[in-house]
Formats: sequence, C-alpha cells, structure tokens
Amino acid sequence: MSTVTVTLPDGSTLEMDAGSTVEDVAYEIGPGLGDDTVAGVVDGELVDKHTPIEEDVELVIVTPSSDEYVDVLRHSAAHVFAQALQREFPEATLTIGPWTDDGFYYDVTDVDLDEDDLEDIEAEAEAIIEEDYDIERELVDREDALERYEDNPFKQDILETEAAGEERVSFYTQGEFYDLCQGPHVESTGEIGGFALLEISAAFWRGEEDNETLTRVYGTAFPTQDELDEYLERRQKAQERDHRKIGQEMDLFSIDDTTGPGLPLYEPNGKKILNELSDYAAELNRDAGYDEIETPHVFRTELWKKSGHYENYVDDMFLLDVNDEEYGLKPMNCPGHATIFDQKSWSYRDLPVRYFEDGKVYRKEQRGELSGLSRTWAFTIDDGHLFVRPDQIEQEVLATVDIILDTLDTFNLDYTVQFATRPEKSVGGDEIWERAESQLESVLEEQDIDYAVEPGDGAFYGPKIDFAFEDALGRNWDGPTVQLDFNMPERFDLTYTGEDNEDHRPVMIHRALYGSYERFFMVLTEHYNGKFPPWLAPEQVRILPVSDDNIPYCEELQDELGEFRVEIEDRSWTVGRKIQQAHDDRVPYMLIIGDNEEDAGNISVRDRKEREETEIDLDEFRDHLETEVEQQRTAVTFLAGR
Amino acid sequence: MSTVTVTLPDGSTLEMDAGSTVEDVAYEIGPGLGDDTVAGVVDGELVDKHTPIEEDVELVIVTPSSDEYVDVLRHSAAHVFAQALQREFPEATLTIGPWTDDGFYYDVTDVDLDEDDLEDIEAEAEAIIEEDYDIERELVDREDALERYEDNPFKQDILETEAAGEERVSFYTQGEFYDLCQGPHVESTGEIGGFALLEISAAFWRGEEDNETLTRVYGTAFPTQDELDEYLERRQKAQERDHRKIGQEMDLFSIDDTTGPGLPLYEPNGKKILNELSDYAAELNRDAGYDEIETPHVFRTELWKKSGHYENYVDDMFLLDVNDEEYGLKPMNCPGHATIFDQKSWSYRDLPVRYFEDGKVYRKEQRGELSGLSRTWAFTIDDGHLFVRPDQIEQEVLATVDIILDTLDTFNLDYTVQFATRPEKSVGGDEIWERAESQLESVLEEQDIDYAVEPGDGAFYGPKIDFAFEDALGRNWDGPTVQLDFNMPERFDLTYTGEDNEDHRPVMIHRALYGSYERFFMVLTEHYNGKFPPWLAPEQVRILPVSDDNIPYCEELQDELGEFRVEIEDRSWTVGRKIQQAHDDRVPYMLIIGDNEEDAGNISVRDRKEREETEIDLDEFRDHLETEVEQQRTAVTFLAGR
Repeated sequence: MSTVTVTLPDGSTLEMDAGSTVEDVAYEIGPGLGDDTVAGVVDGELVDKHTPIEEDVELVIVTPSSDEYVDVLRHSAAHVFAQALQREFPEATLTIGPWTDDGFYYDVTDVDLDEDDLEDIEAEAEAIIEEDYDIERELVDREDALERYEDNPFKQDILETEAAGEERVSFYTQGEFYDLCQGPHVESTGEIGGFALLEISAAFWRGEEDNETLTRVYGTAFPTQDELDEYLERRQKAQERDHRKIGQEMDLFSIDDTTGPGLPLYEPNGKKILNELSDYAAELNRDAGYDEIETPHVFRTELWKKSGHYENYVDDMFLLDVNDEEYGLKPMNCPGHATIFDQKSWSYRDLPVRYFEDGKVYRKEQRGELSGLSRTWAFTIDDGHLFVRPDQIEQEVLATVDIILDTLDTFNLDYTVQFATRPEKSVGGDEIWERAESQLESVLEEQDIDYAVEPGDGAFYGPKIDFAFEDALGRNWDGPTVQLDFNMPERFDLTYTGEDNEDHRPVMIHRALYGSYERFFMVLTEHYNGKFPPWLAPEQVRILPVSDDNIPYCEELQDELGEFRVEIEDRSWTVGRKIQQAHDDRVPYMLIIGDNEEDAGNISVRDRKEREETEIDLDEFRDHLETEVEQQRTAVTFLAGR
Repeated sequence: MSTVTVTLPDGSTLEMDAGSTVEDVAYEIGPGLGDDTVAGVVDGELVDKHTPIEEDVELVIVTPSSDEYVDVLRHSAAHVFAQALQREFPEATLTIGPWTDDGFYYDVTDVDLDEDDLEDIEAEAEAIIEEDYDIERELVDREDALERYEDNPFKQDILETEAAGEERVSFYTQGEFYDLCQGPHVESTGEIGGFALLEISAAFWRGEEDNETLTRVYGTAFPTQDELDEYLERRQKAQERDHRKIGQEMDLFSIDDTTGPGLPLYEPNGKKILNELSDYAAELNRDAGYDEIETPHVFRTELWKKSGHYENYVDDMFLLDVNDEEYGLKPMNCPGHATIFDQKSWSYRDLPVRYFEDGKVYRKEQRGELSGLSRTWAFTIDDGHLFVRPDQIEQEVLATVDIILDTLDTFNLDYTVQFATRPEKSVGGDEIWERAESQLESVLEEQDIDYAVEPGDGAFYGPKIDFAFEDALGRNWDGPTVQLDFNMPERFDLTYTGEDNEDHRPVMIHRALYGSYERFFMVLTEHYNGKFPPWLAPEQVRILPVSDDNIPYCEELQDELGEFRVEIEDRSWTVGRKIQQAHDDRVPYMLIIGDNEEDAGNISVRDRKEREETEIDLDEFRDHLETEVEQQRTAVTFLAGR
C-alpha cells in the first residue's frame, strides 16, 4: 500500500497510508484530537472527517474550537431547517443547502412560503435542536440513492452529474430526516446554540436563469444564543442603515425593472452628492498634475483583443453587433486611456503623463447577484492612469498614495492595506519587478503605513497596493488601489523617446481613489446613516418660516446663502411638523424664522443633533458653515455624522 | 381627353390636357418662356421639361435665371465628368451621378483613380465644355437599353428595378457619350462656365454596406468661372478651418477605427473645452432652477416601448441582448427623465420641476455618413426637461428662451428662429394646442425675436421653437430647441395633485441650449478657427523663458496665475521658435520672461494678434485676464477670435 505525506499547519508532516481519512490522521496525532475532530480542511477545502486522503496534502483538523467549526454547524443548521420544513410542508422538494459567509440557505420548491411560515418552521427547528438528534453518515449505493429520490429531479440531477462516477454516495440522517450530502456536519442537532431564519428570496437551479425558479430560504446559526443575538442586532442595525432604504427615503437614486436591473438612475439629491465626490476627486487629481480625458462607453472589440481583456473578460462583457462587427460596452477604462496616450509622440521630459476620467464601466453580473448600488451592471470608476519612466515609479506611487490617504482621511474611513507581489506567472523581467516592488515597498515604509504582504498575489502584469476600507459596521469593502502594469504598454506598443534618442517603454500605473462611485456612495450612505456631513449633504440648510407671512424674509435669507444648497419649507404646517420633516430628511441645519427673528434681522439655528442657538447673525452662521464645509473637504478635521 | 389643373407660383392656374409636358405649359404661358425652359419643379421635385403632367400639380418653370438652374447645370456637369472619364479610362464602369447641394458626384468602378488622374480628367472635361456638345434626350426601348448595358450590372439593376414597369426609358447624349438618365439637363455642355473635380471617396452601390464598393468622385460646376473661384476659395477656407484638422493640430479629440468609428475620444485639451461648456450650461441651468440628474446609457427596450420611441426608432438604435432580454443604448434622454419624475408624488405647488443632464445618446448613422464631430454615433445633449402645469408654459418657455439667447450671445453666433405649429396628425386636444401655441408666440413677441412660422411643422406631440445658428462661414446648424410635449406625460401616466386634490397631467418641455456638444464643439472650433477665446482656450497662457535660467522665475509666475491654465515652454529653443510654436498652438497669451523681466519683477505680454506690451505688472495682467474671462462667460462683451 502506498503512503501519502500530510503537512500540518505547524509545518510538521506525517506519513499515512493512502486512503486514510481525516479522522485517522487526527487519531494518529492523538486520541483526544481524534475524538474532538468535526471535519478537516484539505488543501484549503472544508471536507467531512471521513474523507480519504489519496495524495500528498496540507491538512487542518477542525474541532469545535476552530474558526471553521461555525461553517460546519451552519451546514447542519441547513439540514435542521430542511427537516422542519418537511415536517410542516411535506409536499416541499429539497434541492441544495450550503453554508455561507454568515449563515446558510436552502433552495426548495413545490411549496409557497411567506414570513409567517418561516416562524412556524423556525419553531419546529427549535424543537429538532431540543430533541438533539444524532447526525449520522451513511454510504448508500448510487442506484439506491436514485430510487430514494425518484420524485426529486434535482437530487437525481446531482446523482447523474457530480456523483455520476461514484459507486456509493453519502447521506446524513437525523431522526426521520435524511439528505444526500457530502458533509461535513456536527455530531448532533443539539450543538446548535442559536438558530434563526432570516428571509426568503428567489433563486434558479444551478444559478442559471433559464432553469427552474426556486425559493431560497436564508438562515443562520451560532454555537450560542448570545452570539446569535449579537449577530441579529448588528444585522438589524445594518438593515436600518441599508442604503437602498435610505436612498428611497432621501430620494437619492432608483433602480427598477422597466429601466433595467443593475442600472441606477440618480435623482437630484443623489446627483448632488455624486457631483461633490467627483469635484473633490477632480481637485485632488488636478493639483497632482492630472489631465481629465473622456472616452466612449462603447468600443469595437478589436480594442479588447489588443489589450488582452477579450480573452479573459468576454463572458462578462455586454456585447453588441453593429453592421456585423462586434462592439462591447467597456469593462475597463485603461485601453481607452492607452489609446489617447498613443495619439502623440512623447519625450522623456514629458513624462509622467497623468490622465483621469470618471469612467463608466459595464460588467455582466448574474442578475441575482445585483444589489442596490453595491453590485450593479454599470458603475463609474474614478479612474486614473499614469505613464511613467521606470525611474519615476517611486515618486508617482508616493504621490498617489498621498492623495489616497487624503481621501480616506476626509471621509474618516478606517482601512487596511495589502501589498501584493509577483505571482508565478507574470510578464516583465526580473529587474523591473524587483525594482518596482522595492519602490512600492519604500513608499509604504516612507508613509509609515501598516500593511500586509500578500506574496504572489500581484496581477500577472505588475505588483499592486490595495486599500480596503472598513465601514461603521465593521464591514470591509474594496477601495483605492495602485497597480503597476508592465503588460499594457507592450500590447499597445507605447513608447517615449529617451535622452539617448532611442524608443523606451513607459510603465503604466492604474489607480483609483474611491474605486467605484456606486459602491463608495453606498458605503458613505450607510457609514453616515444618511446624515451626510454638510459638504456632501444634498440639502445643507432648510429654512422653516413660522408662518406664511415670514416667507418673503426667508427668501431673502435664501438669496444671501446663495453659495449653499438651501430650501424653504413653504408648506402650511406647524413648526413642530416642519422640524420633524427636516429631521427625517436629515438636513444638517434648520433656520427657524418667525416674527421675532424677522424683527431683529437675525436667525435661529437648529442642527441635526438638536442643538439650538437663537439670535444668531446670518453672517456668523454663513461663516461657520463656510469654514465647516471647507474643513471637511480638506480633511483638516472631521465631524462624523454631523 | 381629360384635363389637369396646373397651379403656378403666383397662385394662378391653367387647365391643360392630361399628358402635357412641363415645356407645353411654358409655351402655353408664352413662347419666350417656352424657349427659355430648362426644366420644371413639379410638386417640389426637379424634373425634365419633357415630363408629362397626368394629374393636378403645382409647377415652377425653371429657366437659366431660376435658383434651380444650377442643379440642372451640375447634373450635366456629372455627365461631362463621365464622358471625360470614359475618354481617359475606357475600362471604367458608370453607376449613378446625381447633383448635390453644392455640386455633383459620380459613383464609378473598375478603375483605380488618384488625385493626378483627376487633373487629367478635369482637363478633358474642360475640352468637352469647350467643344460645346448639344445635350440631347432620346427615348429608347427598355429591352434595347438592357442590351446597350449588357456589360454594366448597375445600369441593368436600375432597368430591372426602378424602370421595371417602363416600356421606354430616357437617355441623354452629348457627342459620343450617352447615359441612362431621367434628366433634367441643360441644352449644351458649353453652358458650364466653371467646372472642378474636388475629391475621391469610397461609396457602396445603393448606399448598402453589403453591396459592391464604388469610387465616388465629387465635383462642382457653376454658370461662370467667377462663381466657381469664389466657391473654391470659400471651400479652401472651410478646409483650413476643418475641425478635424484643427482637432489634430491642437490635440482636441481623436476617432479611429480600432476604437470604433463615430465614437470620439477627448484628449486633455478637448476635455478642458468641453468642461468649460458644460460648466457654463450647468451654471445657467442652476440659476434657472434646474436640478441635475444622471440616467444610464443603456436601458431595457421596455422603456422605449413605453415611450413610443421603439416603434419609430428601433432601426436607429444600438441593441444588445442580455439574458435573452432586449436592451438598447439610449437614443433619447427624455424617457429616463420621465422615469425619475415618476419616482415621487408631486403637488401643484412643486411644479415646475426642472431636470438637466449632459446625456449621451446613441444613434446608428450609416457608417459612410459619419464625419468628425459633426456626425457621430454617440453624442451628448445638454438635455433639459421641465414638467409644468399648463398655466406655466409661457413663463417657463420665456425663461428657457432667455437662457438660450444668453448662450447664443456668449458665443457670438448668429441665428434664425422657426416656430413650428400643429401638424395634421397630433395628440392632445384643441384647447391645449391653441393655448400652447399662443403662449409660445407671445414669448417670441415679448423677446422681440425675428421668427418664421412653419405651419404644421410641429412634432405630433406639441409645437416647438427651433434655433439654427449660422457659423462664420455662413453655414447653418441645428441648435437650441424648445419643444412642448403633450404625449409623453400620457404614456408615462405622469400626474400631480392639483389645488382641487385631483390628479392632473403635467406638460413636458424638452429643451437644449447647445443641442449636441459634439456638433457645437465642431461649430465653435471652426467658428473661432481654433483660436478659442481665453475663457475656453485649453491653454490660456504660455510662459516663454528666454533662457533656461529664467525657468525658476517662470514657475513662480505660473504659481501666481494658478487660477488659469498656464504652461511653461521649457524646451531649449530660441525665443523666436517658442513664439512661433505658441502661435501655432493658438495660445491666447504669451509671457516672455528674460533677465530684464526677472530683474524688474515684471512680465512682457504678447497676444495672438501679435500685440505686445512690455514691463507689465503681473497683477495687472491677472486682473485683465480675470475680467476678460468673466466678461466672455457672462456675454457682457465678446472679443471674437481674440
């Protein structure tokens, strides 16, 4: 019998007979570990502890104290849901039920579920957990499995495709319930300390929109009720801050099915915020020596063949046929920018050349994956491309990181930084890679940035620095990026004339301060809970006349505040209702104007934190607001949630 | 024999036998007119004088003193070209050769022509004109014609399609040359006073890109050599000002085949001008109470079915298939704007609601029709839509016309105005049409605008006011527009709540200040001959150091002029060459900085008109430029070509 080498997380190795299971390895290490073993991670994949090891692998043993334990628990929770469902709705047909990042789902059909049903099923699930059934693995002949599932075309489909080559397949059983499943699972249903069903949505069999529509039930589970409660509270908070909800309340944007999913329309309030973001980035870019350019949204696919994107990206592109030639909506802005660079001849003295564009790109996500502004078909990148001499990489990356840090400061966003280095497959020689990586690294050192190195995680075309920002709820989002590119200048045959009068190849740097405007807008909306700081607020000041007679004076005040976004609430409501409405609309400042103020020629101010000041001079207020807006934009100080 | 009624331009009528020719009518009016008759215009169409009149018509007799005479002359000139071509290149095959607005073309094949060949052919044409051949009309049996053209598939195609039902067809003969042709023609080749061949391009048989590629030779002709000379001079001037030429010289934009025809890319200099134009319009719009919005470039075609555009526009749309659903690039912005209006509920007090967007639209022009920025596939409209109560039409149209006039003033463009009224087919009741037309008319009166009424020329959905601007070369271009729309609010079921608490239908107003940015940019480029006034100039000031030692002082000056677009010419050239380059680059102001200036702490200024001033204080220059830019933007005064 041949042997295999199993490498453990501490680097130690074990020689085992080929065909030994994960559990066997655990017992080989020690009987205590063997007893505790729930599952294994073999070469990065979470698997059942009965999985045989047939070749050399890296192995992590999963026990109840491992990070992966909660995934196993949630997988079992999916079975608990399915068992409860079948008790309540015997007609339901099961398909698949995997764990996810923060819970599980199960796709079912032949049953029509609503929120009330979820409550009943949840109660039944609690009973199943209470009963603490053992969860047992059973190997069944594939032919017998097909018979068991003679009424379930989905399980049959799995048995005829993924499991087609197997003689036997695994089932997991708990009480009267069984399910075709590869595992892993916990020992018994009682290990689940907290269980909740969350929502219902639609899905397609195997995610293909041409297949059967299924009902997807989302749920989650934790080892303890406390952990579940904490999660549900965080989720509740996130839902209250959901940018789709705030977007509707504040008339920021809309997306609907007639105009097209994944294609947001920005209403006046949303556009005002977008414009502020765009102006802010444009200012940073101009001060840093960038020139703005504009490229089409649609190009002949020839361009994508030239850039190499076609080969890798065509399935995600929106294509169209024009006079029998293939065109595509752009998934990237870089080839357009390289085309513009290529219009002129450049000397070494002209470099670096820096272009920027608020460039809309189009990527065909699965329709079911689309979600508000966080996942769209069309999104705008604040895209910049630099064409630099190799000796300029460090200075330009430094300057880029500088304005990225300014941006993150201005929005008060926490962030982490990854430095990704040369992967196995790459273009460009050793010398340029080494030089570039050391230049990037010295920028990170120089800026005193805390960063993690991700060895081999760079793009094949160059090393990169990625910023991920963390929002007020502790979630991480892709953010700013700086990527070197040795490939595109080759593909576009870009050159500049050196001091030696010879042609040289520039290096391209891709960078973004926000990444996607849509996603950044979403993060900010949730980060601020819609209470945008005054410089971003679509309506900065609302003037509330105490009576209609005060309106003419309010209009004078509005004129005098002409540089700001000021509205007058001219509906004939009580002052109380006007204040409530301005509060609901999240307007940073209210000016309350009655006869007293009009007679004295001054104003009463109320801010979103309900702080009031009366008998303020308008000039004083204007100066205050001017200073506040200016300081917020320039990141001198930051009043979060003001 | 039945009779027909012929109505002449003065309104008088003649009863003629059916089948009488245009020439017969002329002789009926008088023998002198009969002798002079060259052709006729029957119901708006220019036809041969031998054309029989079979029904009641409106007729204009064409003589050598008519406006239409030059068209007839150019039609004959096309034959002269074809005759000369066949003498020089007997292998050439003729297809068709019509007159055009300012000349003629002839599409030929089986011959490979270059510019030199045109000279030879032109010389031969001069000889044919000199020989003064009579041009004679001949009726030939269609069967005989097919035999004459047994080697010419194009003429055969015409005989088998357009002429399929005819027993006999007309030929025109001059000397050894004959051509299948419907006429009209002048009496003899000698009538052509000035003849020129202009350029060669490619064309397709019947304009279909799937058909044979042909060689199109453009030429022109006039009754006198003087008229031709004048035309050629104007054409030369237009070519020098061609925005495609200037665009390349000044690095404004580029269009190429890899990225896609009809899809311009804006280089930094072009984008600076576009941004100034956009900012200027945005300012006018905001001051007039508009809110900016943003809509996608691509929509489900459901939207276009709802708006009614699909029915009429689908052939001109760029369509794409996404998951078996049809999407389209937007040919119009209005349905997106109506969708945004429809997101909220509105009260009569909220109206008018005014939206604007620099909205890119896509219209599939024939590829051969694309030309620089004047005809593109993608262009941006400075599109505004107002949603108003019927009683607000006048006030809103007045305000719109106001900012249109401001815009035309600012750019110093001459214009004409057309007021187009209700067509036969229209939507909306009598009352709203009458009220709307009278409101529009009183705006035109109130603004003291010289306008032409175009009765029945309004859109089916409402009356409109169109502005056409005339550029420096006397050419007319579609410009600003104000259109009422009673239809789209119906189709989108748009409503507002009236004072009576009932739902009411708003009226939509479509308006643009520029029309298309691309076309407006083209007009301005040619209008100014690239010498954009300082407020638009991509580079407003260039600082020319006399020697490299002066560069640090130049950089100080550049900093002090930070609010303007200022570059330093740092190449080691002579001052003369630097001045020449700045002149070629059409930079409005040069600051020439040598040791004298540096020592005295002042500057020497030179402008594009070669006016020089030395020993100016920098502050003085800055104040001057600030004032100039401000005045130009606000149309207080205008220094054309400065």
